[in-house]
Amino acid sequence: MAYKTDIEIAREAKKRPIQEIGEKLGIAWEHLLPFGHDKAKISEEFIASVKDRPDGKLILVTAINPTPAGEGKTTTTVGLGDGLNAIGKKAAICIREASLGPCFGMKGGAAGGGYAQVVPMEEMNLHFTGDFHAITSAHNLLSAMIDNHIYWGNELEIDERRVTWRRVLDMNDRALRDTVTSLGGVANGFPRQTGFDITVASEVMAILCLATDLDDLQRRLGDIIVAYRRDRSPIYARDIKADGAMTVLLQQAMQPNLVQTLENNPAFVHGGPFANIAHGCNSVVATTTALKLADYVVTEAGFGADLGAEKFMNIKCRKAGIAPSAVVVVATVRAMKMNGGVAKADLGAENVSAVEAGCPNLGRHIENVKSFGVPVVVAINHFVTDTDAEVQAVKDYVATQGSEAILCKHWADGSAGVKELATRVAEIADADMANFAPLYADEMPLFEKIETIAKRIYRADEVIADKKIRNQLKDWEAAGYGNLPVCMAKTQYSFSTDPNLRGAPTGHSVPIREVRLSAGAGFIVAICGEIMTMPGLPRVPSAEQIMLNDAGEIEGLF
Amino acid sequence: MAYKTDIEIAREAKKRPIQEIGEKLGIAWEHLLPFGHDKAKISEEFIASVKDRPDGKLILVTAINPTPAGEGKTTTTVGLGDGLNAIGKKAAICIREASLGPCFGMKGGAAGGGYAQVVPMEEMNLHFTGDFHAITSAHNLLSAMIDNHIYWGNELEIDERRVTWRRVLDMNDRALRDTVTSLGGVANGFPRQTGFDITVASEVMAILCLATDLDDLQRRLGDIIVAYRRDRSPIYARDIKADGAMTVLLQQAMQPNLVQTLENNPAFVHGGPFANIAHGCNSVVATTTALKLADYVVTEAGFGADLGAEKFMNIKCRKAGIAPSAVVVVATVRAMKMNGGVAKADLGAENVSAVEAGCPNLGRHIENVKSFGVPVVVAINHFVTDTDAEVQAVKDYVATQGSEAILCKHWADGSAGVKELATRVAEIADADMANFAPLYADEMPLFEKIETIAKRIYRADEVIADKKIRNQLKDWEAAGYGNLPVCMAKTQYSFSTDPNLRGAPTGHSVPIREVRLSAGAGFIVAICGEIMTMPGLPRVPSAEQIMLNDAGEIEGLF
Repeated sequence: MAYKTDIEIAREAKKRPIQEIGEKLGIAWEHLLPFGHDKAKISEEFIASVKDRPDGKLILVTAINPTPAGEGKTTTTVGLGDGLNAIGKKAAICIREASLGPCFGMKGGAAGGGYAQVVPMEEMNLHFTGDFHAITSAHNLLSAMIDNHIYWGNELEIDERRVTWRRVLDMNDRALRDTVTSLGGVANGFPRQTGFDITVASEVMAILCLATDLDDLQRRLGDIIVAYRRDRSPIYARDIKADGAMTVLLQQAMQPNLVQTLENNPAFVHGGPFANIAHGCNSVVATTTALKLADYVVTEAGFGADLGAEKFMNIKCRKAGIAPSAVVVVATVRAMKMNGGVAKADLGAENVSAVEAGCPNLGRHIENVKSFGVPVVVAINHFVTDTDAEVQAVKDYVATQGSEAILCKHWADGSAGVKELATRVAEIADADMANFAPLYADEMPLFEKIETIAKRIYRADEVIADKKIRNQLKDWEAAGYGNLPVCMAKTQYSFSTDPNLRGAPTGHSVPIREVRLSAGAGFIVAICGEIMTMPGLPRVPSAEQIMLNDAGEIEGLF
Repeated sequence: MAYKTDIEIAREAKKRPIQEIGEKLGIAWEHLLPFGHDKAKISEEFIASVKDRPDGKLILVTAINPTPAGEGKTTTTVGLGDGLNAIGKKAAICIREASLGPCFGMKGGAAGGGYAQVVPMEEMNLHFTGDFHAITSAHNLLSAMIDNHIYWGNELEIDERRVTWRRVLDMNDRALRDTVTSLGGVANGFPRQTGFDITVASEVMAILCLATDLDDLQRRLGDIIVAYRRDRSPIYARDIKADGAMTVLLQQAMQPNLVQTLENNPAFVHGGPFANIAHGCNSVVATTTALKLADYVVTEAGFGADLGAEKFMNIKCRKAGIAPSAVVVVATVRAMKMNGGVAKADLGAENVSAVEAGCPNLGRHIENVKSFGVPVVVAINHFVTDTDAEVQAVKDYVATQGSEAILCKHWADGSAGVKELATRVAEIADADMANFAPLYADEMPLFEKIETIAKRIYRADEVIADKKIRNQLKDWEAAGYGNLPVCMAKTQYSFSTDPNLRGAPTGHSVPIREVRLSAGAGFIVAICGEIMTMPGLPRVPSAEQIMLNDAGEIEGLF
């Protein structure tokens, strides 16, 4: 049996005008800023006008540690949203925007898959509504103003060796990782070594995704630390007087984007911070707005639950004052098998014992998520080669963990394949079983926060950090940053810091290589291992195959 | 008497939904891609569907050499468009998009002034419909793919010292003019010296503005020369296999943008290439589309007529197969006075003899424009301090040149102030008096083309160029590029290469410092003097004052 590709399915979509999607949510046409006929931004005025409405139920979709087999987290988020609508609930989904750069390297497609997709797929993987370009502009305006300040006399006494603010591009370009700028003589300024990150790694991205409104946005932008003086005192973006102009550049980007699923249900697609050095969730303003407009809001977090759900709970929910009513952990039979030691090439053959061997990874995530006081359901995202015995093995295992696993066929069947999950999730959410609390209190010292995550979520024995790092954390506490949450930058492939250690390891150590202060975003980043903030292109980049076909359709992007 | 500022007037605009503006031109809603309620792109399908319609009359607005007094070329373009509509003609205007970078330095506002403006003014000076961001992405994708090709083994044998393709950002950032990239070791590639230009200086911008459709766009992108081998043979963007993906990134940017004037008349705002190293005109696709939809199309060219109109005729019209039916040369009394030797501080006082002394600059431009076989009218863009005697002095002078000068008060009065000019321009255009021909034939050798422009337009005695430059031109002729037009990069402030030499100089020399081949855009650039392709910010950038006010309106941008 031949399956249609994602792009073939997306092209057959019967899209409704975005005006109609807005109407479903009660948004009048004048409060939608259309981008073409299938995308729109939602006006600030409208968002302010619904502020006092009661919230719908928030449902988080997270997953096991990702494997090369793929787990289908976005696909399940989209499918569950459609499923809830199919059983008569008023539901919306909230997902992240895609970064343009990587689409020209290895992969495109951040809009779900099969019959659980958000459209227009092509544009979501290209410029979309220009949010990431606006972030690039705002970030680089600040960069230009810093060098300009130094050029014209450096009144703020910036130590040129300690300019921490780099530049960004939404492009995979390894040549820009490490650069020297301002060469060429007097007219071009003072040469210094710096570099570029990819736009999604910008602190401006994290800020946009955590800001509650434009005032909060500007305050946070002003709080960004861009450099230090020789006496190590910080220079803020506010000192450079860049915060106002950056806010102007981001005014429209702050408005959430509305699109639709293949089944014409509303989808908010807004923001896309890195899930390692940032918190990896779509914007607070999209999520809180969706909660005012729908009875159920299905959202996702980056990577596996050890990183994504942890940050969703400890950073996003804490800061936005929201809480999930239910959490769906997505697993696949194939990923269980890989966790159980099977190589990718052998995934097609039935192997119940490998499935069983891999299940403890899932079990660990279930236990972790429950520790936040929220009920968990497991979604088994069905793949065509899965056998009944393998599926049953996952169900049986999950039952032993005091949870329930439900087989979902949204990839093949859309909402019709995910009604059981939708029904169960709605029941749980409606029962108000959740008693959400973050893992640690604001007042806990920063190093203890890192230890708490490492021990309670990663199940490590210890956190290793040298004196310099511990002193840095203490300095930040003394400077008034001690109440910030911690954002862990760790490999997504393992509970440990070793990407090859699958399953549910214990007894490992978590070494902290570096800590960074994202004062505008409002978190401390703890970096455990190599974190790449500017990807490169592969030997044969997908860009070589991307082109318009004779019908004017985009080929090669997916 | 207190006058309202441009932004105050713009904010009071009674904008009509962009759907209505499209209807005026016969564009159905499904062929407009809205960006908000006041901007839209026009679909490729629609543009293709009107291809066989007869063309309206094309009217070029150009000007004397710019002075710090300002001549009001865009304002007059907008005013004349409104004036033509006011006298019952079906008219549209075509102007360029604004670059974002300079708005954070010295100035914003590229949308006319007073009661002759295009709206939405703020957005036109910010992200607008994202075209420039798309150009930045397409340009930098090619850059990344070049370094990536070298990184993975350099199969094409690119000489790393001879990579001519730089990177771009739409930002005034002098620190990026001259950089070293790929530092940091093996994983980051081979260090080399390069830099960034501002986006409007990208050859991709010039290509987008000259391409007739997406096929032509891709062909031209493929023709870009990005580097040379050690044997000096060129490497094309096509060899890097970047042309397809660049076209995909530019697909939407190729669609012209439709907005409106304060009087709700249609305005095409599309493309904005540099007027020195590129040709400085709005896009061919916008102009040719407008000509199918309106009976009169008013457009402008960059800088004064010596650069802007010359390139409009010799590059844009030649390549697009279009021709102006009439040309309006804009002059102001104040600019005449500055050409007559008056300092800016003294412009307020009546000085008829200075006006008379400055008029030969205008006379030279009239004569030059007429040499292309097109009829000329002078528009005196009225300023409140102009006296009747001063205005009469300009009119009298223009009469001695066999032309007519008409006083225009569109800045203060909108279309009501420009009806006389509109009536006269329509008469001239309807009379089909033009007998347009470019200044030189395609077959003329490249150096002779430069000499022809220098002698016949600039009235120089000679062109100075060393052997290396002459040989380079001959090499390009041998390589098949001899039929290209020449794009002169010269100061806009004088007919000569000395920016301080006002009036109508003769007997000067034009030294050619450098020649460049823009093989994708399809012209040879001859550079006479310093040309800055990446501006810097001033000591106090306007960005410091740009912010949102309590009403959410943008302050400080204008």
